[in-house]
Amino acid sequence: MHTVQPSFIREILKAASSPGILSMAGGLPREALFPADAFLAAVERVMREHGASALQYAATPGDLRLREWIADHLLREHGIPSVVEDLIITTGSQQGIDICGKLFSDGPVVMEEPGYLGAILAMQANRVPITPISTTPEGPDLPLLEEALASGARLFYGMSRFQNPRGASYSTEAAVKVAELLNRYDAWMVEDDPYGDLSFDETAAESTAAPPSPPVASIAPERVIYLGSFSKTIAPSLRLGFLRAPRELIRMVEPLKQAADLHSSGVLQQALSSLLTGGNFSYEDHIGRVRNAYRSGRDTLLEALSKKMPGARVPIIPQGGMFLWAKTGESTDLLFRRALKAGVAFVPGGHFYLSQPDDRTMRLNFTNLSPREIFDAIDRLATVQAEERAAAGPFRDT
Amino acid sequence: MHTVQPSFIREILKAASSPGILSMAGGLPREALFPADAFLAAVERVMREHGASALQYAATPGDLRLREWIADHLLREHGIPSVVEDLIITTGSQQGIDICGKLFSDGPVVMEEPGYLGAILAMQANRVPITPISTTPEGPDLPLLEEALASGARLFYGMSRFQNPRGASYSTEAAVKVAELLNRYDAWMVEDDPYGDLSFDETAAESTAAPPSPPVASIAPERVIYLGSFSKTIAPSLRLGFLRAPRELIRMVEPLKQAADLHSSGVLQQALSSLLTGGNFSYEDHIGRVRNAYRSGRDTLLEALSKKMPGARVPIIPQGGMFLWAKTGESTDLLFRRALKAGVAFVPGGHFYLSQPDDRTMRLNFTNLSPREIFDAIDRLATVQAEERAAAGPFRDT
Repeated sequence: MHTVQPSFIREILKAASSPGILSMAGGLPREALFPADAFLAAVERVMREHGASALQYAATPGDLRLREWIADHLLREHGIPSVVEDLIITTGSQQGIDICGKLFSDGPVVMEEPGYLGAILAMQANRVPITPISTTPEGPDLPLLEEALASGARLFYGMSRFQNPRGASYSTEAAVKVAELLNRYDAWMVEDDPYGDLSFDETAAESTAAPPSPPVASIAPERVIYLGSFSKTIAPSLRLGFLRAPRELIRMVEPLKQAADLHSSGVLQQALSSLLTGGNFSYEDHIGRVRNAYRSGRDTLLEALSKKMPGARVPIIPQGGMFLWAKTGESTDLLFRRALKAGVAFVPGGHFYLSQPDDRTMRLNFTNLSPREIFDAIDRLATVQAEERAAAGPFRDT
Repeated sequence: MHTVQPSFIREILKAASSPGILSMAGGLPREALFPADAFLAAVERVMREHGASALQYAATPGDLRLREWIADHLLREHGIPSVVEDLIITTGSQQGIDICGKLFSDGPVVMEEPGYLGAILAMQANRVPITPISTTPEGPDLPLLEEALASGARLFYGMSRFQNPRGASYSTEAAVKVAELLNRYDAWMVEDDPYGDLSFDETAAESTAAPPSPPVASIAPERVIYLGSFSKTIAPSLRLGFLRAPRELIRMVEPLKQAADLHSSGVLQQALSSLLTGGNFSYEDHIGRVRNAYRSGRDTLLEALSKKMPGARVPIIPQGGMFLWAKTGESTDLLFRRALKAGVAFVPGGHFYLSQPDDRTMRLNFTNLSPREIFDAIDRLATVQAEERAAAGPFRDT
């Protein structure tokens, strides 16, 4: 029997969701921003217009109108050329990763380290051997990526923008180079971009970093399987995402999607389509509000860290997304346990590695809590850290 | 790259869904029976009571109240002992098969032939080697099943009630014997039971066959992974089913479910739970109406076949479910193409086989069309068949 280990991270997230905990651990979008009323109105429209037929089996690739909206959005907002025939609706972008795991189960898959745990889990569930490579603030370690591809790896999984867990984005140079390597070695990239619409669109005045690159899929669309999600932009409960791939791959993806769950919920696809294209809802206004709120969360987190935990370094200022990566002087595993007792949760960074964990790191989510709660959480964390250091005494290992 | 062939059946189902076609091909439940108003009311209740939090990420195993309803239902209606901890909500029961494919990817899996194409596809997608065994009207060929298990197969996939495509159910003796074999060889069964609630509960007066057995999961719960679905009882568009397994397996299934799509739609689970336990909806009354309608569809189909196509044999009178299996004197592949031109669709039976296709068979669905349409469809089919026979002349191979 083939088993994957339930990871420690699940225990962390379970503990973090206990009542009274200020959690910066999970990747939860802020509930107050979900368009709940507009969603319900969209469901009501769909049921009024289509009645019981909205509840029947639907086609595997997904709702046509929804795919039209996505194709248009990808081209206009992200420069990714696509038509509906290149798109398959998935049950969250997590399912897109699972399907890619099946498609490339011969492996190995090259993965950024530290990286998204759900992707690691999906590859392990499909028994795909993983070749981890380290990362730089501007993207994957390119010589290591080339070495892996030259050694025969056919697939690279990466997040080019606001990566989970580091919040890092590829520079344009790195994205172009990745595209070149894919072409040179006839390899594919699974570009997982769940936060692509959550860019803070900053001016250089606010950040010294260059703006994130356009997605690799816009540079080498014929070599990239691009995964998108409505979980962070609309709401996770819909479990709707999409996979965009060159036509030759879509033909192989469709039966794998069918094997996985026949199709994603038709009534939810129709409701989402109606939400995006009908009624009074404006996606642009909505995503603008989400971006502003999350930028404000990030700013509060940066300010709190600088005031309360001056020892924590922030190597990358995330210019979008949901996470900030901080480095501390000591292992964060012990800090995590003490913090939890003080009512604060984060994810100790060592758990995001496959080979060489750097356990003096932590992932901090800035989208779930309000700015006031973020400040309070870092205040408590700083107190716990000070106590820990005092307890360790002058001989502690720095 | 690992690919599975898009099967001919998909082309059949696509053609069958064209406007103007009377389709007995797909496995569509009857839309007029979907509780559309009660479903919308349930969504409205959930959104009113829980607001945006109904749209947040949810726990992987699924909604607690829904699992409580299922546990109670399984024990009361099907004699399967289960508590919520034994249950995981899946994105349709198709996902349950996919997860079992991952769990037992070492293979081989023993499968009934002819059998459910979605299960074959899911096993192929997970590269599980398949050992097909033939069937009898009372269940799988037991000596062949024993031989496969004795040769080292650890998994048997089967539908014990109203099997797709034959409409056959295990006799109690066969179910008990399957349970014995599982125990003797330390093997597992994936008991796929999407039609379990669609029993026609017939008296012997209407049918000469013995009533279907209770599920194998009620006889040997510790050796069976039982899959259920709300697609045929409530509506397919919800994409909600469930997997019930012994605790030791649930621990391995949960991370595989998480890897597949994190969790099934939370808002739909809550709506289904609210539908089943709140409001004015009665599941018992509803399922009673569905059973009556489907029994009437089967009766009409039997009557039409006997009046219009006396050459077609019906080896098994289905006592529930959605399908009837008919045998004819000639290959049904050519008949299918001609029937389609005459506006009638079915699935030629040869496509349900893995090794030794019997192409003088056809699967007829009796739940999608109304009784009047069923009669009309068989009338057209008989005409086409008569024309085909006349064209073949006196020397045709009988």
